[in-house]
Amino acid sequence: MEEDQKSPGRSGFFMDKHQKWMHQALVLAEKGRGNTSPNPMVGAVLVNDNQIVGEGYHQKFGGPHAEVWAIEQAGGLAKGSTLYVSLEPCSHIGKTPPCAQKIIDAGIKEVYISMIDPNPLVNGSGVRMLQDAGINVTTGLLESEARQINRGFINSIEKKRPWITLKMAQTADGYIADITGKSQWISSSDARDFVMQQRTIHDAIMVGMGTVFKDDPGLLPVDRGGFIPYRVILDDMLKIPPRLKLVSDECRHRTVILTASDDKNAKIKQLTGTGVNVIHVPGDSFGWIDLQKTMEKLVEFGITSIYSEGGSQVAGSLIQHDLVDEIQLIIAPKVLGEGISTFSGFMKSLDSAIQLKWDDVQMLGQDLLIRGRLA
Amino acid sequence: MEEDQKSPGRSGFFMDKHQKWMHQALVLAEKGRGNTSPNPMVGAVLVNDNQIVGEGYHQKFGGPHAEVWAIEQAGGLAKGSTLYVSLEPCSHIGKTPPCAQKIIDAGIKEVYISMIDPNPLVNGSGVRMLQDAGINVTTGLLESEARQINRGFINSIEKKRPWITLKMAQTADGYIADITGKSQWISSSDARDFVMQQRTIHDAIMVGMGTVFKDDPGLLPVDRGGFIPYRVILDDMLKIPPRLKLVSDECRHRTVILTASDDKNAKIKQLTGTGVNVIHVPGDSFGWIDLQKTMEKLVEFGITSIYSEGGSQVAGSLIQHDLVDEIQLIIAPKVLGEGISTFSGFMKSLDSAIQLKWDDVQMLGQDLLIRGRLA
Repeated sequence: MEEDQKSPGRSGFFMDKHQKWMHQALVLAEKGRGNTSPNPMVGAVLVNDNQIVGEGYHQKFGGPHAEVWAIEQAGGLAKGSTLYVSLEPCSHIGKTPPCAQKIIDAGIKEVYISMIDPNPLVNGSGVRMLQDAGINVTTGLLESEARQINRGFINSIEKKRPWITLKMAQTADGYIADITGKSQWISSSDARDFVMQQRTIHDAIMVGMGTVFKDDPGLLPVDRGGFIPYRVILDDMLKIPPRLKLVSDECRHRTVILTASDDKNAKIKQLTGTGVNVIHVPGDSFGWIDLQKTMEKLVEFGITSIYSEGGSQVAGSLIQHDLVDEIQLIIAPKVLGEGISTFSGFMKSLDSAIQLKWDDVQMLGQDLLIRGRLA
Repeated sequence: MEEDQKSPGRSGFFMDKHQKWMHQALVLAEKGRGNTSPNPMVGAVLVNDNQIVGEGYHQKFGGPHAEVWAIEQAGGLAKGSTLYVSLEPCSHIGKTPPCAQKIIDAGIKEVYISMIDPNPLVNGSGVRMLQDAGINVTTGLLESEARQINRGFINSIEKKRPWITLKMAQTADGYIADITGKSQWISSSDARDFVMQQRTIHDAIMVGMGTVFKDDPGLLPVDRGGFIPYRVILDDMLKIPPRLKLVSDECRHRTVILTASDDKNAKIKQLTGTGVNVIHVPGDSFGWIDLQKTMEKLVEFGITSIYSEGGSQVAGSLIQHDLVDEIQLIIAPKVLGEGISTFSGFMKSLDSAIQLKWDDVQMLGQDLLIRGRLA
């Protein structure tokens, strides 16, 4: 029996060797961020005699899976080794052959898996295929970390919509702008740095036309050489002026307009002709797009996580329709007395209030960041 | 040289022996809470040969000072001892003879003082009197703790008004009630327990007529056998119906009405006849009372700290007029969409917003408590 070697993990807790190898698989998985959606980020590490003999990650949508890279890198050393993989190996023939079979063929003797693949085509059958071949399988290792990384992928399967983080920056008295509509800047530069970082871990940033008209935002990350999130615009009536940044800058191919408009094909043609993505969504009799359908369309497009930076209208629509997975409430130490409310479009009595749950709170410079979710 | 004996203090830090004795003096000072205003709470400990030989505290307004009790208790053991006192001993003849002289006469050889008395009649002259008599004096020991206990007394001298803590319980979107005015209960029972505890460490609770009409509150502590804070009502036009709890319950002698009304003497007579306190404050041409004047009158009455539990009107008036020392913002995990705003009566642009500073945040059951102050 060998001793478990303990070392401090990224959360400060001490990890045993299995956690350590799985942690490495999760670090590898992260490398695929921005390129794998709507498929998951997956990392794999092959260990033989306490040495890493192969590593891999799912690099891009439709490309080889993490396990394949690791097994190829290991070559003959894969035989008798232990695999650490952040998602259950697939058992079906999809865009690539089943990984479970490749693992069996390579002679791997033991497999550690973070989380079962929620995809109904897999969902446990990968584990069974490995076990039927006599491989020792352990699941659930660092599962919550794996679920966090792939929260968009999980949502797209379980809820048929992307993971949606709703960010709001408001004053102590609950206003996102003063009465003239001015909102730059309610929050501090530290809070804005946090927002910039959040943009890099979501497939897309979303705003409504209120924000587009008011601010003509660019919504681009500081580092334009890295991952550029999609910029999703809810533009029910297709009113966006073609000169605005989101549809005219050099990243306009990363802009996605959702609209109920179908009688203005000239404008759609004009926009798509310059590289902008326009998606038609059914509208109601007032011409407003159906939000649940919008979200399904975004998953089809390949967007599985959204950072909502819209104003009252978008925030109100999302929370009313139960389309929020995480709430980020930034509370600036300011008081306006009157202003633009955080949510618009609905009104609840105290007894029927929308219930949240606070998960965490931290200082962001002079502001507070409260994280929560719908209860 | 003797070793300092270190022991863990109430904040978890390790105290040396001087801090330990001064801590004991502060614990004694607290015993006077509710009975000394507008004078300070003061505690004193006399130590001789590492043993406490005398203790005392300022028990009630106009009564003997803390040092006097301690010296009397020590008797002959006061000679050569060390005094720990939470406020500079007085040097003037006020309601009692000067304590500094008593200390000199008792043959005390060394004096530790938490804070200098901000009262212009003392303000350093007590220290000088002791030093002139050859006594070794050290000031500033646990000063911030002493200032915290006597924040009302300090405010009453430095700002000519009570310490004012403004409490607001609001939803995540900044409403203190739903659109029908219903506010019971926005916050959880843990938050309400916190509020009950806060009521016991302020001389008075304050509300406006909006809250009185809407809720007919009692504003009494759970333990009615202990300290009952005053219940201050801002009733500009003296509209309070005599049947309401605050002016008819068994604690109505602890109710103070501030009003600009002077042409309804019959009602004032009726109220004061049942034991209610009514204070006239000058009003403006609309009949609204002057808030700064109101606060001066409250200090004269003997109230040096106020816990404001009023609604939008009172909160708006206080914050607009820079009459807030601590803000307690309780944020419930609820969303209403529309409702009654936290503040009313003013409207700021983002550039002229009232600036706060967040000091601390903690969970109160399912709610968040944010403490801050005006920047």
